[in-house]
Amino acid sequence: MSEVALPTASETKAPESPAYKAKAFAAKSPTSELASFSIPRRDLRPDDVQIEIQYCGVCHSDLHQVRNEWQAAMPTVYPCVPGHEIVGRVVKTGRAVKKFKEGDTVGVGCMVSSCGVCANCRAGDEQFCDNFATLTYNAEDKILGGVTYGGYSESIVVREAFVLRIPNKLDLAGAAPLLCAGITTYSPLRHWNVSKGQKVGVVGLGGLGHMGVKFAKAFGAHVVLFTTSPNKMADAKRLGVDEVVISTSPAEMQKHATSFDFILDTVSAYHDLNAYLALIKLDGTLVLVGAPENPIPIAAFSLLGRRRRLAGSIIGGIRETQEMLDFCAEHGITSDIEMIKIQDVNQAFDRLLKSDVKYRFVIDMASLK
Amino acid sequence: MSEVALPTASETKAPESPAYKAKAFAAKSPTSELASFSIPRRDLRPDDVQIEIQYCGVCHSDLHQVRNEWQAAMPTVYPCVPGHEIVGRVVKTGRAVKKFKEGDTVGVGCMVSSCGVCANCRAGDEQFCDNFATLTYNAEDKILGGVTYGGYSESIVVREAFVLRIPNKLDLAGAAPLLCAGITTYSPLRHWNVSKGQKVGVVGLGGLGHMGVKFAKAFGAHVVLFTTSPNKMADAKRLGVDEVVISTSPAEMQKHATSFDFILDTVSAYHDLNAYLALIKLDGTLVLVGAPENPIPIAAFSLLGRRRRLAGSIIGGIRETQEMLDFCAEHGITSDIEMIKIQDVNQAFDRLLKSDVKYRFVIDMASLK
Repeated sequence: MSEVALPTASETKAPESPAYKAKAFAAKSPTSELASFSIPRRDLRPDDVQIEIQYCGVCHSDLHQVRNEWQAAMPTVYPCVPGHEIVGRVVKTGRAVKKFKEGDTVGVGCMVSSCGVCANCRAGDEQFCDNFATLTYNAEDKILGGVTYGGYSESIVVREAFVLRIPNKLDLAGAAPLLCAGITTYSPLRHWNVSKGQKVGVVGLGGLGHMGVKFAKAFGAHVVLFTTSPNKMADAKRLGVDEVVISTSPAEMQKHATSFDFILDTVSAYHDLNAYLALIKLDGTLVLVGAPENPIPIAAFSLLGRRRRLAGSIIGGIRETQEMLDFCAEHGITSDIEMIKIQDVNQAFDRLLKSDVKYRFVIDMASLK
Repeated sequence: MSEVALPTASETKAPESPAYKAKAFAAKSPTSELASFSIPRRDLRPDDVQIEIQYCGVCHSDLHQVRNEWQAAMPTVYPCVPGHEIVGRVVKTGRAVKKFKEGDTVGVGCMVSSCGVCANCRAGDEQFCDNFATLTYNAEDKILGGVTYGGYSESIVVREAFVLRIPNKLDLAGAAPLLCAGITTYSPLRHWNVSKGQKVGVVGLGGLGHMGVKFAKAFGAHVVLFTTSPNKMADAKRLGVDEVVISTSPAEMQKHATSFDFILDTVSAYHDLNAYLALIKLDGTLVLVGAPENPIPIAAFSLLGRRRRLAGSIIGGIRETQEMLDFCAEHGITSDIEMIKIQDVNQAFDRLLKSDVKYRFVIDMASLK
């Protein structure tokens, strides 16, 4: 990662920077459970905000990363402190900070910095920073050295530009997953202009999928949920889904051929995308937000037949994340959560693997005290 | 195919319709050579145009179809008369025909009819007709019965609505391939708004690719050709290509990472699309117009990383095909061709298999007399 493009002093590497200690939970190897660990957090620089973390969501990425399942693309540096769905209270601000003051409720998502000067950063698409955004955990920490540590911790220090305002109206624990699951689904639905009168599919009803359903409904779409589990039917209806399609039934799938404006695919496991592409109408789009480990075979005719598009999307920029949080406050949208203590996070990981959660675990960080 | 949606009497099935005989070249089986054959052409109905065929391009599809290589999707009915890049002279018109008169130079492409009433037909996207457009050959002939016969023939009768005007300025033989290779490349470049200042890639320099290069240049783009053949370099430059990338060299490919607004992929053989997706910048698109036989594995990260899109496109609607022909007249664009007699079409097929043609064989139909 180039260092030529840094706009402020904030990212100058200074491993000797003064730091304080914070309690956290970390994995020390791909096979070890998360356990209590002490990490350094930097002392405030002029544009930094120090946050006392109140809640942190448990994202499937946390599990992938601590178990080093993305070894090829993003090898894990141990000890690893995951967590990028952070909500907390401002306890201290650097002297140049303007947007936040002590006592404000704020959030931090998947990124804590980016170059700020490339075309994508300037356009507000920091997630696509040409010099790579600094991820909230397991990324090079350009200030303290080593790697960044995430939100399974009592405290974090983040540049003001990457801190979000959490509107008062929102339930704080339910707001935490908005910082990743929320923006990951909100951004593509917005980017592809999902709106009233459209027929929109959501594939999978998990942490991402249930947020996708809520947003697509809030945008006025007719929402169809694709799931392999007939027992999700009732809950889908409760969440506002208009129709449920059991995706393992070719007959049910066939009924919806060439009828969707847009499908949001939230499933990370390997599955046949051609079956979903066949349901998309002329000039419609299937967007992946889950990332199956292995490449998925696409038949050219799946795309050619109706000038269909297959695309991908990751999280969203900071401006759009704030827009999403404000939208959620206005429409009363939060994640459905199950609150846990940090001491229960290893069991939560095990349950996550079995999709046994409705629909996001959120750690009550008071349990770390 | 449903018959409820037919807008005119033109498609009422009437196998007893009076017909005349026309000379043609047909394949009688997947393994037999094309040879002289007599086919029926229907007598004029009110909205029909009878055309004396002067030139017919030899499309790779012709070869696939006569050899029954699309058995699963479009099994070949024998005898098969291929040809859908047709240019000729109007010799007779039905009494209701308004747009054409005897002596006009006209063209016929891949379609000879469509339902006319579905949303796609009404929008001018007849190629995506919900009731399936009637293809120029090897489709159900709803009027005479049997299958439609293509342009390797001295004469054809087509509904006025599917006949194109060939502008006077155009060389007639060089215009024939515009009816398929031309519109197949023009349509996606237009649809995705390729324009001045953009960096556009064209994969493959064959019948489709060389037209893609000409159009992308005419639209003002900086054009990069991807080819596996270093010996195509000189010809690419002659055609106006700005840069040539030898796609088998990872180092050369890497130089263009994340830099393309748009890539038009014209290659029908199996190839790694992830290598091209990596070259596309934020929100850019890779469009397939070739149709590799087997599904191609796509890594989710190829799409997610820059919100990239992979799409497909087939030919274009009738209105857009006319727009393309008029654009070609205005900009002096035709296909580079090698003229052959119909008696040489079997050798031409053999050479086509070896990509030994610059860049389209066109049959001089006078040789059929």
